[in-house]
Amino acid sequence: MKKVDHIGIAVKNMEERISYYTETLGLTLLKIEEVASQKVKVAFIDAGNVKLELLAPMSEESTIHSFIEKRGEGIHHIAFGVTDIRERMAELKEKGVRLLSEEPGPGAGGAEVAFLHPKDSFGVLYELCDKSGKGEV
Amino acid sequence: MKKVDHIGIAVKNMEERISYYTETLGLTLLKIEEVASQKVKVAFIDAGNVKLELLAPMSEESTIHSFIEKRGEGIHHIAFGVTDIRERMAELKEKGVRLLSEEPGPGAGGAEVAFLHPKDSFGVLYELCDKSGKGEV
Repeated sequence: MKKVDHIGIAVKNMEERISYYTETLGLTLLKIEEVASQKVKVAFIDAGNVKLELLAPMSEESTIHSFIEKRGEGIHHIAFGVTDIRERMAELKEKGVRLLSEEPGPGAGGAEVAFLHPKDSFGVLYELCDKSGKGEV
Repeated sequence: MKKVDHIGIAVKNMEERISYYTETLGLTLLKIEEVASQKVKVAFIDAGNVKLELLAPMSEESTIHSFIEKRGEGIHHIAFGVTDIRERMAELKEKGVRLLSEEPGPGAGGAEVAFLHPKDSFGVLYELCDKSGKGEV
């Protein structure tokens, strides 16, 4: 948990939202990709020291679709950049923090990701995001 | 809009939440202060490249109290570090973004702060945070 890799933001309409970040706020679009396993389209915006990750649902089965239905568009999660994600998950479990999955799953950019139970983080959804490619046991 | 200065997180109980960030997540508490004008107690947590700003209401009149009543504890806003906050506010107004106040107000750490209307940012509450001390006209 050395730094924040990105802040996830749930959006309905990817194109219109990207133009807000680039044209109105003057930030730079880094890349767009689809994460099929999570049924989301993802756009990364460079905010200098962190990235903003715009997340648009590609299907009604996406958790981002449910999030927007319940709470509207807005900030969805904060992702900490980590290495050795399985060790970090084990440490958190030992400290009594529940994780939303037993194993890390695939995230954008080939990362391995896992989410902490937001009740244990007092309403904040935290993600662990391991891009080291060394997360495999 | 060169970088994210901090991420604001609404909390009910400051002491318990600080211990989650320091003892469970292993992050460092930087400082605690009270922002009387906004009726909040603020704790800054060092997350490496950005700060997490825990915001606890000191009164039922605080907007953080209303936020927690409506949505529960959780992520409240994202603050961009800026200089010349009045110029940034004028630029955004020209681009059609509404601001929640005509003038910047006092924030934690002696900063001048202003908020963008979250409807214009698609559900995200963005703050401009000017610590340059040169925001005064």
